[in-house]
Amino acid sequence: MPDTFDMTISGAPSAGGPSRRQAMLMGGIAVAAATAGSLVPGGARATTIDEAKKPVDFLFAIYPNGTLLDFAGPHEILTLLPNVKVRFASPAGGLVTLENGVVFGPTEKLTDVTDVDVICVPGGLNLSAMMKPEILAHIKRLSETAKYVTSVCTGSIILAASGALKGKRSACHWAFLNDLKKYGAIPDPSRIVKDGRFISGGGVTAGIDFGLAIAAELRGAQAAQEAQLLVQYDPQPPFHAGNPSDAPPNVRNAVYKMLPGSEYGLMQPIL
Amino acid sequence: MPDTFDMTISGAPSAGGPSRRQAMLMGGIAVAAATAGSLVPGGARATTIDEAKKPVDFLFAIYPNGTLLDFAGPHEILTLLPNVKVRFASPAGGLVTLENGVVFGPTEKLTDVTDVDVICVPGGLNLSAMMKPEILAHIKRLSETAKYVTSVCTGSIILAASGALKGKRSACHWAFLNDLKKYGAIPDPSRIVKDGRFISGGGVTAGIDFGLAIAAELRGAQAAQEAQLLVQYDPQPPFHAGNPSDAPPNVRNAVYKMLPGSEYGLMQPIL
Repeated sequence: MPDTFDMTISGAPSAGGPSRRQAMLMGGIAVAAATAGSLVPGGARATTIDEAKKPVDFLFAIYPNGTLLDFAGPHEILTLLPNVKVRFASPAGGLVTLENGVVFGPTEKLTDVTDVDVICVPGGLNLSAMMKPEILAHIKRLSETAKYVTSVCTGSIILAASGALKGKRSACHWAFLNDLKKYGAIPDPSRIVKDGRFISGGGVTAGIDFGLAIAAELRGAQAAQEAQLLVQYDPQPPFHAGNPSDAPPNVRNAVYKMLPGSEYGLMQPIL
Repeated sequence: MPDTFDMTISGAPSAGGPSRRQAMLMGGIAVAAATAGSLVPGGARATTIDEAKKPVDFLFAIYPNGTLLDFAGPHEILTLLPNVKVRFASPAGGLVTLENGVVFGPTEKLTDVTDVDVICVPGGLNLSAMMKPEILAHIKRLSETAKYVTSVCTGSIILAASGALKGKRSACHWAFLNDLKKYGAIPDPSRIVKDGRFISGGGVTAGIDFGLAIAAELRGAQAAQEAQLLVQYDPQPPFHAGNPSDAPPNVRNAVYKMLPGSEYGLMQPIL
C-alpha cells in the first residue's frame, strides 16, 4: 500500500542514542535514591554530540474528556528517546480531567505556547473542548510552523477541523474515519499514515505504533527500536478483534450498534 | 506452553455485555453535551440483569514514580466493560506524581481500602514508595481476599515482596524477571501468565494484552473482544524489537548496557 507509513526510515541511527536514556535511567536511580522524589531526567547525563543539539520540542495538545491511552502510549516511547523534550498543553492549562474522570497534568496553557517542533493531538469521543474557533486557531497556528503535525485516533478530526489537514491523508479511529472528509482531509484506514510532515495513528492503541514511527523520524530507527525493547512491545493480543474486518460478526455487530454510524466510519464525535 | 494464559476462556459471553458501554457512551454523550463536564459513566444507563448484579470492584494500586502506560492500557480496556467499577489507590491518596513528572489521580488512600474483587499493581523502575513493610502489608491484606491478584511489568515484584506470590508463577518486565525468585515467586517469561487467581502481564505494553485477558475472565470473551474493537487493538509495530530474542543484536546490546543485569533478567529496581 503506497499510502501507509514508509518502513524504510531515512536517517542514520543516532550515534549518541542511548546516552540520555542511560543517563536518565542510571542517573535517575542515583538521584531518586537520594531524594526519594521523581526520577530526574538528565540528572547525571553525559554530554555527546547529539546532546549538544537543541532538543526536539514535542507538544501533546490535550483537553478535558480526552482519552488517556491515546497519548500515554506515544508519551512513554518519547520519554525513552535521546534529546526529546515532551510538553503538555491544554485549553485552560493546569490539570485536565480526562474521560472517565481521571485527572492528568500538569499542562501549559495552549494559547501561551509559541512554537514547537512536533504537535500531537490525541483523540476522544467528546472533542468539544477543542472544537472552538479560538482553540482551533491555535492548533492551526502551531501546525503551520511545526516540523511534524501529528495525531492519534480522533485527534485527526481536531487537526482537520482547524484546517491543517486540507488535502492531506490521515488516519483516525475506524468508527470515525470518514468524518475527516467534511474538513477536506483524505481518510486513510492504515494504522500509521505519513503524508509529508503529517503523521497520524489510528484508534487509541495505534498510538504506540505511531509513537515508534515518529520516534524513528525524530531520532532514527536504532533509538526507536531501543524504546520498543524497553517497553517490551511484542504485542500478543489474546483475541483477534482489533478491526471490524478481523472481529467475529457478533462482536462487530454489537459495536456497530453501540456506536451509531460506525459501520460506515461515520460515528459522530461530540463537537 | 502450559504455563501461558489459557486461551479457552471459561464462562459464557455476558448477555448484558454492551448495555453499560452503550449507555456510557450514548448516555455520556447526552450528559456531557448538557454539562460540558466529564463523561459521566452510567449517566443514563439501562438496567439489565447484568446491571443488577454487584459490579466488579477493580483496584489499581499506583504510587509515586510508577509508569503511566503500565496501568493506562488495562484501565482503558476495563472502562469499556459492562459492570466493572475501576478505582485507584496510592500510599498517600490524592494526586500521584508518576515517572517523568506527570501527575495522575485522584486516588484513595491504600490503607483505607477495605477489600476489592481485583487488585492490580502496575510497575515502574523506582518501586521505593511501595516497598515499605507497612505498605506491603496492605497489598498482602487486599491480595488475600481478592478474587484475582494481578500485576503489570515490575508490579509483580511488589506483589512478590508482599509475600502474595509465594510458589506462584508470574510475568514481569524481561529485564527484571528473575528478581522474582528472591521473593519465592516463579518467573515466567510469557506475556500473560495465569496461575489460578494470579494473573500477570509482562513489561509495560503487555498491560493491554493483560487487560484483555482479565476482561475475558471478568466479563467473558465477547465483552473483551468488543473492548478490543473499541480501542482498535490491531497492533502493527513498525519494527520487531519488543523482546531481546527478536531485537537486532545492536539494539539488544545497547539496552543491556543501559540496564545493568538485564541480560540475565536481573536488573535491579529501586527499592
